Amino acid sequence: MAPRYAPSLRSRLAPLVLLLQIGFIVVFAFYAEIQSRENPDGKTFSKIYPEFQDVNVMVILGFGFLCTFLVRYGFSASAFTLLVAVIATQLAITLNGIEYYGPKIRLNLRSLVEAEMCTASVLISIGAILGKTNPVELIIISLLGVPGFILNKWVLQTQLKVWLMSSVMVLHVFGAFFGLMLTWMLSQKGSEQQSEKEKFDKKSGLFSMVGTIFLWMFWPSFNSVLLDDRMPGRKLGAVLSTYLALAASAVTAAAISLLSSPKGKINLIQMESCILAGGVAVGVSMPVIHQPWEAMTIGVIAAVLSSTGHRYLKIHMLLTFQCHDTCGILSTHGLPGLLGWLVHLLLQIKDCDDYSIAIRFAVFHICTLLSTISISMSMGIITGLILKWKFWRTVQENKCFDDQAFWEFPHLAVRK
Amino acid sequence: MAPRYAPSLRSRLAPLVLLLQIGFIVVFAFYAEIQSRENPDGKTFSKIYPEFQDVNVMVILGFGFLCTFLVRYGFSASAFTLLVAVIATQLAITLNGIEYYGPKIRLNLRSLVEAEMCTASVLISIGAILGKTNPVELIIISLLGVPGFILNKWVLQTQLKVWLMSSVMVLHVFGAFFGLMLTWMLSQKGSEQQSEKEKFDKKSGLFSMVGTIFLWMFWPSFNSVLLDDRMPGRKLGAVLSTYLALAASAVTAAAISLLSSPKGKINLIQMESCILAGGVAVGVSMPVIHQPWEAMTIGVIAAVLSSTGHRYLKIHMLLTFQCHDTCGILSTHGLPGLLGWLVHLLLQIKDCDDYSIAIRFAVFHICTLLSTISISMSMGIITGLILKWKFWRTVQENKCFDDQAFWEFPHLAVRK
Amino acid sequence: MAPRYAPSLRSRLAPLVLLLQIGFIVVFAFYAEIQSRENPDGKTFSKIYPEFQDVNVMVILGFGFLCTFLVRYGFSASAFTLLVAVIATQLAITLNGIEYYGPKIRLNLRSLVEAEMCTASVLISIGAILGKTNPVELIIISLLGVPGFILNKWVLQTQLKVWLMSSVMVLHVFGAFFGLMLTWMLSQKGSEQQSEKEKFDKKSGLFSMVGTIFLWMFWPSFNSVLLDDRMPGRKLGAVLSTYLALAASAVTAAAISLLSSPKGKINLIQMESCILAGGVAVGVSMPVIHQPWEAMTIGVIAAVLSSTGHRYLKIHMLLTFQCHDTCGILSTHGLPGLLGWLVHLLLQIKDCDDYSIAIRFAVFHICTLLSTISISMSMGIITGLILKWKFWRTVQENKCFDDQAFWEFPHLAVRK
Repeated sequence: MAPRYAPSLRSRLAPLVLLLQIGFIVVFAFYAEIQSRENPDGKTFSKIYPEFQDVNVMVILGFGFLCTFLVRYGFSASAFTLLVAVIATQLAITLNGIEYYGPKIRLNLRSLVEAEMCTASVLISIGAILGKTNPVELIIISLLGVPGFILNKWVLQTQLKVWLMSSVMVLHVFGAFFGLMLTWMLSQKGSEQQSEKEKFDKKSGLFSMVGTIFLWMFWPSFNSVLLDDRMPGRKLGAVLSTYLALAASAVTAAAISLLSSPKGKINLIQMESCILAGGVAVGVSMPVIHQPWEAMTIGVIAAVLSSTGHRYLKIHMLLTFQCHDTCGILSTHGLPGLLGWLVHLLLQIKDCDDYSIAIRFAVFHICTLLSTISISMSMGIITGLILKWKFWRTVQENKCFDDQAFWEFPHLAVRK
Repeated sequence: MAPRYAPSLRSRLAPLVLLLQIGFIVVFAFYAEIQSRENPDGKTFSKIYPEFQDVNVMVILGFGFLCTFLVRYGFSASAFTLLVAVIATQLAITLNGIEYYGPKIRLNLRSLVEAEMCTASVLISIGAILGKTNPVELIIISLLGVPGFILNKWVLQTQLKVWLMSSVMVLHVFGAFFGLMLTWMLSQKGSEQQSEKEKFDKKSGLFSMVGTIFLWMFWPSFNSVLLDDRMPGRKLGAVLSTYLALAASAVTAAAISLLSSPKGKINLIQMESCILAGGVAVGVSMPVIHQPWEAMTIGVIAAVLSSTGHRYLKIHMLLTFQCHDTCGILSTHGLPGLLGWLVHLLLQIKDCDDYSIAIRFAVFHICTLLSTISISMSMGIITGLILKWKFWRTVQENKCFDDQAFWEFPHLAVRK
Repeated sequence: MAPRYAPSLRSRLAPLVLLLQIGFIVVFAFYAEIQSRENPDGKTFSKIYPEFQDVNVMVILGFGFLCTFLVRYGFSASAFTLLVAVIATQLAITLNGIEYYGPKIRLNLRSLVEAEMCTASVLISIGAILGKTNPVELIIISLLGVPGFILNKWVLQTQLKVWLMSSVMVLHVFGAFFGLMLTWMLSQKGSEQQSEKEKFDKKSGLFSMVGTIFLWMFWPSFNSVLLDDRMPGRKLGAVLSTYLALAASAVTAAAISLLSSPKGKINLIQMESCILAGGVAVGVSMPVIHQPWEAMTIGVIAAVLSSTGHRYLKIHMLLTFQCHDTCGILSTHGLPGLLGWLVHLLLQIKDCDDYSIAIRFAVFHICTLLSTISISMSMGIITGLILKWKFWRTVQENKCFDDQAFWEFPHLAVRK
């Protein structure tokens, strides 16, 4: 029944994205303006621009190529990620603009970076359902995920007085729970057994290594770009903490992958996911990390959690809850994000001299997590219900994880 | 008749490039000096260096890997591009130096960036004939294309008083028309049918995705690097406009690729070429873009033009004019460049209060295009005539698009 | 006897790296602190950060993917390089800290860059034995190579009063001789014939091209990052010299590869190694290079040396000394490094007016080389002796250059 897909994509995806793009242009025409006043001497621009580009590389190249390990799904993984990313970023700029600045959406590098952070959150959740959805569904997810994330950010900032940086860094937890609810809602009977196409080969593993390594290298920029550089040493601290945590994670991920393998061999995809765990955990717990060794310890624990989660929890989630998680986002982003949250709580309480302030902080901090999880899960359920509508013509079971459904391929007579 | 190639490359390419390199050294020994006075406090250096590196990545990695989609031509596409790029850059530094500074060629990061822009122009034209020429011919093309581009820049700047930035940004139009004339001159009878080897496979498509994505991500640097940062907000404006135009192009390219496909599937190579159209068009029309929505609209129109051109015009050019365009540079650079030129004209006229100034501008602006097209096409014809000389031993029809003619391959007994 | 590897890796590698990581955390907990005082206004941070990231990309992505040309060893080449890099960097931070700052290890971007330079030295030596060792042995090598390099740096700086930059840039010579001694010590009888698996194919060649091109593009940052930017034009001079030398090397490498090939075809791996030679040679001889043409001439000579070395010396080393050099580090780093040293000597003497100062310099400069070579070779012999211990369970002859020994692979029923 291959022909079913052709009309699906053409009659659904093309009008949807064109309408969205025209909508963005109309909104930007009336409400957006480039805000150049903040940097009268060009200093701020040249200071933040390299870090912005690092984040851009992570969001567009890193997340896109991370998922190219699926042996027959490389085109979709890299190109649909780009498509979702540009739509989500434009939406996030718009919604962030409404939230912050009143009548006008002011554009500058900072607002672009904040929008790309929302996008990262959506790309994380897409990791859970990649290969089992068509691009129309991916766009729908980004259209609901971005407002959800920004709603949560607004709740955290206005109701719970959470610092901007912390309200953005819950993106890992938000993305993971949003994605998991989605994949649980969309699970189909009989999907417990792993698809043949869900595997990797020698070359697709290397492509995903390219993506992973760019994420790993530029993660210090991701964690430090939004920090104010007027406080001396703060950016430097964030960069060094993230670097050391990532180093510790890389070492630990290799060790745990080896220890947890029945044959004593390393699993590349597991290792790739788990070397990033330290960056996630340190990002979430940044405000309370003052010493390099704390960052490194968090990196080790995050990688242990992430690796064991990837080996045991992923299959458990699938068998018990029919919750299939393509890229293992629960282990890569969810668990390290929760660990970062917990570390933040414990270290902040330890640092408090006053008992009542500690209690007060704990209550607020727990509310932060509850808000994030409840909003992400609700949005996941809502999105899942919308996606269950047959109108979107979801991918059939036997066409999952296959580029053939969406991409033109030449008939290659010449074999390489 | 494979042995014909071996002497061709060895007795032609090696002496040619070695002589060129020695020539550059001699010229640099007498005329070049590093100009360090402009940046007494090192400020300018650290401001422009990250953007220079972005442009460097685009020229060396981006353009090189963009063309690796040819399934049997990956080594040639990436390595010959590097070879042409370094020779063209050294030539452009020399010629730019003669043009600007009188007796001495002054070297600094800015002169290097300007030289890489000339190189980009040559790399664009090479996209049209890639796979059908040997590296000797590619070097000849760069040796004639760079002077042509610099001659045109000189005409624009001195005769038509065009702003430096605008005289550089015609590189897309120049490269496209130069390349098209070349491929038309070199077309052989019977070459209308597409070669088997001109196709892509799952992995070569992903390699070209790597190149494309680096071009896409760093295009804002390409359009902003030559802008003076003393005017507040100008660089920021260029970066944001380019980013938004690229985003709009990516969305539109996916939609048009889908709509124009008979099977309702996306063509990866078409999408890759067309997501870049917005960056090209905004680069050419930058001086008159003041609002984000203008950039986005230009991005949409550029992608529509580029995508339809790629689907319909490319095959039309081949069948009607025997003009075979390997990478579709007419659609990727030519049409968006012309669009950018037209937008510049229309918006500038709209902005003029005075009727006579508007007319004056229009005349000058039309002369700019005429100069660019006539110089590029003349140089294309001259280069084509030179390349028709049998001395260069061009690639035989049945050896086109094949690395085997130029590269050593091990005999792989072990199959992967 | 495949099962022999499983216990080897699990019972050796996992405890080793986990213990090392815990050791680093303990050391950092007591002795390390983030030094934020040097940049009270954040200026230094934003100035050096982009260059730090370039170096980071070179060390993690560049060196890792350079070696992915081995057709069945891509996972190991990229992932083990990452593992070795993070362990070597943490060790180098610790040892550098002890050397410089007395009681406390002060962390900042500069100390991180210096540590990554030590790491680069180790990664170079690993290039000689890649594929013939297991990761446990690679870790041991890094644990002995880093102290060796830092010992040599300490000797050069304190005993021979060598400038910091010069003492770091001997890393190429150090890495090459350390690696060559190692591979000579570990050579096994009958290993003279090249393994089938030591070859490259169309795709693995392109992966190594990605790594090479990132090394090539960012080499100017590698050579300039440690330079003080208070002296105007010094960084700019280093960047431009390196760029021009690399350009000259790229041209020459292609020509020599062609001239030295019996069939008149270019060898991709040879060309990839040799386009980097100019960067190496200029890095070592930087203090005496004042003119662009000097850098370009050095680039040409370095590429000639490197290319001929790669074609003739590599096989000669193997047949005469049973010294098998997987990535040709003698030609890529050793010979250009020695050339840079010689150029430094000759130009410095030429620049001296005073005869006695010239003699004095020559003696010191020769001692620099002798110290580097003797320390690197001694450490190579010691490391080789330790690695000969059967406890490490080295890779069997027939399992060399094969990911299968260390990595889990899915059984792919669906052929791509």
